[in-house]
Amino acid sequence: MTTLARLLDLAALPTAEIPASARTMARFSLFDWMVCGRAGVGEPLAGILRDYVAAEGGRPVASIFGGGQAPARAAALVNGATSHALDYDDTHFGHVGHLSVGIYPAALAVAEEVGASAAAVADAFLIGAEASVRLGMVLGSVHYNRGFHQTATAGAFGATIAAGRLYGLTRDQMRAALGLCATRASGLKSQFGTMGKPYNAGISAANGVECAGLARAGFTSADDGVMGPQGFVATHSDAPSVAGVWDAPPPGTFVFEAIKYKLHACCHGTHAMIEALAASKRGHNVTVERVAAIHLRTSPRWLSVCDIKAPRTGLEVKFSYNWLAGMVLSGIATSADRTYTDALAADPALATFASKITVTGDATVSDMQAMGEVVLSDGTVLPFVHDLAVPLTTDVLERSLRAKATGLLGAEADQLWQVVAHQDALSASDLGKWLMAG
Amino acid sequence: MTTLARLLDLAALPTAEIPASARTMARFSLFDWMVCGRAGVGEPLAGILRDYVAAEGGRPVASIFGGGQAPARAAALVNGATSHALDYDDTHFGHVGHLSVGIYPAALAVAEEVGASAAAVADAFLIGAEASVRLGMVLGSVHYNRGFHQTATAGAFGATIAAGRLYGLTRDQMRAALGLCATRASGLKSQFGTMGKPYNAGISAANGVECAGLARAGFTSADDGVMGPQGFVATHSDAPSVAGVWDAPPPGTFVFEAIKYKLHACCHGTHAMIEALAASKRGHNVTVERVAAIHLRTSPRWLSVCDIKAPRTGLEVKFSYNWLAGMVLSGIATSADRTYTDALAADPALATFASKITVTGDATVSDMQAMGEVVLSDGTVLPFVHDLAVPLTTDVLERSLRAKATGLLGAEADQLWQVVAHQDALSASDLGKWLMAG
Repeated sequence: MTTLARLLDLAALPTAEIPASARTMARFSLFDWMVCGRAGVGEPLAGILRDYVAAEGGRPVASIFGGGQAPARAAALVNGATSHALDYDDTHFGHVGHLSVGIYPAALAVAEEVGASAAAVADAFLIGAEASVRLGMVLGSVHYNRGFHQTATAGAFGATIAAGRLYGLTRDQMRAALGLCATRASGLKSQFGTMGKPYNAGISAANGVECAGLARAGFTSADDGVMGPQGFVATHSDAPSVAGVWDAPPPGTFVFEAIKYKLHACCHGTHAMIEALAASKRGHNVTVERVAAIHLRTSPRWLSVCDIKAPRTGLEVKFSYNWLAGMVLSGIATSADRTYTDALAADPALATFASKITVTGDATVSDMQAMGEVVLSDGTVLPFVHDLAVPLTTDVLERSLRAKATGLLGAEADQLWQVVAHQDALSASDLGKWLMAG
Repeated sequence: MTTLARLLDLAALPTAEIPASARTMARFSLFDWMVCGRAGVGEPLAGILRDYVAAEGGRPVASIFGGGQAPARAAALVNGATSHALDYDDTHFGHVGHLSVGIYPAALAVAEEVGASAAAVADAFLIGAEASVRLGMVLGSVHYNRGFHQTATAGAFGATIAAGRLYGLTRDQMRAALGLCATRASGLKSQFGTMGKPYNAGISAANGVECAGLARAGFTSADDGVMGPQGFVATHSDAPSVAGVWDAPPPGTFVFEAIKYKLHACCHGTHAMIEALAASKRGHNVTVERVAAIHLRTSPRWLSVCDIKAPRTGLEVKFSYNWLAGMVLSGIATSADRTYTDALAADPALATFASKITVTGDATVSDMQAMGEVVLSDGTVLPFVHDLAVPLTTDVLERSLRAKATGLLGAEADQLWQVVAHQDALSASDLGKWLMAG
């Protein structure tokens, strides 16, 4: 069976056959995506794009993060970029890229346009995301290493499928939509560090809406624009890999389920320690006052990255085990970007506590792990260990994502969680109202 | 000097320094582009796109071929695709691609939006087209051979520069616009033979408008998205060529000036004969009634392509020296697609005349040439020769393009010529009215 046929089969997968475990993760992604989008509305690029589509005007059928409505394609462009503005959204390491920001905006915008349910949004995203990861695996690491940004390239095909599913495309129309996407998809990594990076997520979503919409209206395209001669894969990857891509994982699950979430707005090398100390706080009521010392063992590679002993700025705090340990045990939200102020770097209590932390490089500790001991004032030694590679339980994931959301959005976070948790009773328009709120 | 700096210098070239010879050709291209666009309005893809942007709605600032107005980006999308629908527009063999259809729609739409003059439209197109050809030369034939469609890829950079010039971008804004274009540009040749091919021209134009518009509003991008690491050229060409690209042609002229126009709606292999016989008709009053025989010598490669002795359909007439010779001498327009009906293939007068034509392969004749003799009934022998590689004089070019236009549009052609010929007195909006007419 060809890759195109696999994609078309996936696009048409009956809702009843979608794995429940994947749906659960798709809903976590929906929550996290809406949180990132709401948190991104104040970024300059988000404002520029809102103004751009407002100046264009058009039929207000789809909601925009930060307020206003626009045609579906335009809303997808703004929402993709806005939700990727903080670079705090989900990541899939098989893909390799960000899934929610390139696909959810397309799914939600089209769902609002056609009057679909909120559940249909999550399912369409999920189908699109699964297709996007599989195509990302076909394109392979050579595609990414050459300079293409999978979030935008493979992402656009996922966005096309999500949009196409909600538009109710026939199999032939979906094939045309994917063919059009092949000639429309783009996105380069050389944009990293500029507004061009979040723009790429918007490009992905907008391309998906446009290609699905044109195919719906009867536009024709190459028979197999994805895998055919001079198609997208042939032109964009020097070493595509088809073998095995459709075998894993076991039947009944989606590769999408390996999706990862960023939970702390600081250097990735500190996240395992943060999780470990947060568990000590929860499990053993470890507080700043009770601690005599903390001995952390971490991968030696992190010592040159995030072991700043006396940070001078908020940015440097993001790279300081010593400061972050005190923040966790003091209950200061590590999930909120706005936490990391220069004043925090000058906090005398955190400075005092920082002197109790020792950090040692240990080659037996992976770069996803943290190990060590908390020594309490009464002499009790509490060993800790955390491995980011181990999937989180849904309980822990919910708590973590909600904590992240609260750090970013305050009280709005709990309201938003209730919306996503009860989405089966809601329409896509109900979700849209939350994008515009505030 | 870097390629980026060259492009930015070109984008900012003072109007007074634009070569007059290039301006002349840019105006021929404007006429030909408007003719192709007007002739394409009835194609199904044009109707789908008009309906798509009409459904989106939005501020009506830019005119659309076939009627209606839309935001500049949307109008550029429709007009690019519509004008390329018949695949009858101009071609540049250095580029390699179609220039007008990917750049004029961006220039005109933005010019209408900002209230620029018609002359500014042609100049902005010209600057963009020159940049596009140069960048096409940098990307090289490997880019085209890999499967990329220069009309859309290099074309988008030209469209960005044309739009950016009309938006009045600063040098830094233009650099950002080109950086955004690097992550936005796309287009594959595997779309050929489908609506995806003209869509590529629309993609080019729409991307140019959007990237220039976002840069104007303050969007940032990679410092050198064109030539930098993992920039557009590095990711889209395995053998880019910078050396010499900016040397030729002689100072004071533009490489754009080598632009070629399609003048007949039939196989390219027949065009040299058509031009030769048309010259015989004009110069020696050769008519069907006066001819005893025509002996044509052509490149042997064409014998298997366009030497159908007794065409059965209108499509086969396009590949028949024998039929086309009679059409030229009878005054039947070879320039109009609608000429080539099945009834024409059954025309008894043409069938009788066809028997007077002999066609011989001659390896000394290039595939751009036609040679031979017309033998009149009174025994007079009139040798003929035509070489498509020889540039046409402006007189001949004007006559040829106007004949093509008349074949496509009838009486509207002369009105349109007057508009373009007197554009110095007109605004971009005046040109826009002609797109919508009819």
